Amino acid sequence: MSGMDDRRYMALALSLGARGLGQVWPNPAVGCVIVKDGRIVGRGRTAPGGRPHAEPQALAQAGDAARGATVYVTLEPCAHYGKTPPCSQALIDAGVARVVSALEDPDPRVAGGGHAMLRAAGIQVETGLMAGAARAAQIGFLTRIEQGRPMVTLKLANSFDGRIATAAGESQWITGPAARRMVHAMRMRHDAVLVGGGTARADDPMLTVRGMGATQQPVRVVATRRLDVPLDGQLVGSAREVPLWLAHGSRVSKTPREALLAAGAKLIEVPVSPGGGVDAPALLQALGAEGLTRVFCEGGGALAAALLQADLVDELIGFTAGVALGAEGRPAIGALGIDALSEAPRFELADTRAVGGDVMHVWRRASAPQMGAAGQ
Amino acid sequence: MSGMDDRRYMALALSLGARGLGQVWPNPAVGCVIVKDGRIVGRGRTAPGGRPHAEPQALAQAGDAARGATVYVTLEPCAHYGKTPPCSQALIDAGVARVVSALEDPDPRVAGGGHAMLRAAGIQVETGLMAGAARAAQIGFLTRIEQGRPMVTLKLANSFDGRIATAAGESQWITGPAARRMVHAMRMRHDAVLVGGGTARADDPMLTVRGMGATQQPVRVVATRRLDVPLDGQLVGSAREVPLWLAHGSRVSKTPREALLAAGAKLIEVPVSPGGGVDAPALLQALGAEGLTRVFCEGGGALAAALLQADLVDELIGFTAGVALGAEGRPAIGALGIDALSEAPRFELADTRAVGGDVMHVWRRASAPQMGAAGQ
Repeated sequence: MSGMDDRRYMALALSLGARGLGQVWPNPAVGCVIVKDGRIVGRGRTAPGGRPHAEPQALAQAGDAARGATVYVTLEPCAHYGKTPPCSQALIDAGVARVVSALEDPDPRVAGGGHAMLRAAGIQVETGLMAGAARAAQIGFLTRIEQGRPMVTLKLANSFDGRIATAAGESQWITGPAARRMVHAMRMRHDAVLVGGGTARADDPMLTVRGMGATQQPVRVVATRRLDVPLDGQLVGSAREVPLWLAHGSRVSKTPREALLAAGAKLIEVPVSPGGGVDAPALLQALGAEGLTRVFCEGGGALAAALLQADLVDELIGFTAGVALGAEGRPAIGALGIDALSEAPRFELADTRAVGGDVMHVWRRASAPQMGAAGQ
Repeated sequence: MSGMDDRRYMALALSLGARGLGQVWPNPAVGCVIVKDGRIVGRGRTAPGGRPHAEPQALAQAGDAARGATVYVTLEPCAHYGKTPPCSQALIDAGVARVVSALEDPDPRVAGGGHAMLRAAGIQVETGLMAGAARAAQIGFLTRIEQGRPMVTLKLANSFDGRIATAAGESQWITGPAARRMVHAMRMRHDAVLVGGGTARADDPMLTVRGMGATQQPVRVVATRRLDVPLDGQLVGSAREVPLWLAHGSRVSKTPREALLAAGAKLIEVPVSPGGGVDAPALLQALGAEGLTRVFCEGGGALAAALLQADLVDELIGFTAGVALGAEGRPAIGALGIDALSEAPRFELADTRAVGGDVMHVWRRASAPQMGAAGQ
């Protein structure tokens, strides 16, 4: 089998795996393809909720055809006994001949143990194929394992001149319906949507995925130091249908706390930063501890600035509309305390195109690990 | 001859004409193609400086082949005796059989007179072919004839969050070398580059076209109410090599006035607006009276806001860099005094793409006349 075939099957496994983004936390969104005599005999991806894993599903589909087959998998098969026996054991039991994996799993319970287990059973193991693309796709899971926090996408819908609302706070609608639809698709590929308390108070947004046939909604997270959100609004009112987590400081009054708990919201206490808001690094560590791997932050300006200042933004997405709001408009990003251009957070352009009548631009952390250790 | 051939030849004439943009003011940048028996026998475009016109150059190239030929011209041939005999007379004298023109020339000295003169001589005249594209290309000339002012392109090079400089005024370089090169190409296609006094003081920019092999530099115009520009800088120091016009209010002291005149700058007195700066509509009327048809404004924020408030921006071009400067940064557009989103100036997306590591986005006046009266 040629290396070109290998890449083709791995690319298929990656696209299968990516379909699970936002649906499988705290687990990685893995894809698996099993090939026998040039024919695909099994496909699998991590199921919604994180289980079953990709490999047993692909093996079940392949049945007896798995014997002597090649298995393409976007992350090292697990080696630890959890709720189910490890996938490496299942591959051994099925009698596969060869396993091609994109990445070693940095989870300390795996960390090369899966590959070793397969090799010990006489299976031919090749690792690192399309590792760059696999790292990019699994950046949320990897960031959580490696840094204890979810990956963060910061999305801001701006006027031409970088304003997210008029001076009076009017923000609906700066961008058009096509951009708003794309934002729903982006929310769906994240485990949680995050906004600051100011946005929750000004807009009382639902923060749900609508019009996309989503089977699982992202968790809604509000960073609100004083638990200062409208108790009678649609955001709090829907907390029993769609998870609502409120990250707050230690000094909160009893009344909103009890009302929010009664409404079904989950409260997470987080340190407060010297600047005044919920401490951004502590917030993300707390969200990582809850199992979130991918967080989609939609502002406002103060939270955006706090994330940027703490170097916590992995992907920056702008939607720019052809409207000018002027200097009185509300800034997309609050004060950053930058003296020189060389200190300003920089990102690398990953994609740009017209979306309806607006411009979408996607930027990645300049030191993004797409071209990681085992990259292309 | 088919209509498809007609369009093909007119498109060629339009592309020839467009090569003169920025070089031919106060005249329109016209293109002309002469076709005989399916072969192109002559091409011409308005020469740098505005003369000779396109038609006599194409006729000279065609020679005797012009007899019985079809002439494609992007604007009605002139009918008035000025420095040279009218182009319509030249076409009649050459014995052409048919003239296809894109637009009637709204110049009151022409205004249908060219077409009438040709018809009276027995030439078959068809008008309106690709009129939309022709209006878009000649928007500067048309705006000057119809409204007395040049067309205005407003270009702003912003951070992700709509800032043109840090709080300290540092702006070099927010965008990268590819974007800066494209700005030079854009300057070259305009008759003049315009900045506010604040930009002249902060950056002392040359505002010339560099690295493009330009044979003619755009006029540099600074709107500076009090003639408050650095007298010993490179901008003023180069006024004898590249025209420098200073638009100022009535109250200016004698010292800078004399120094600037001695340096070779041209002074244009313009009313001051109630807001404090040079009055934007009056400034543009004055530039139109000087013959300018295309003005490229590069900020700063106060001048950008004044142009937008007066609805004088025909094309808005943004370059967005992947850098965040925060709310202390200098805003790309100053205060607009907008209360509601519905009052904010809106533009329609015309083009967007990556330019080096930055994003370019081009917007046009929502009521842009590309699809004008005789449009497609």
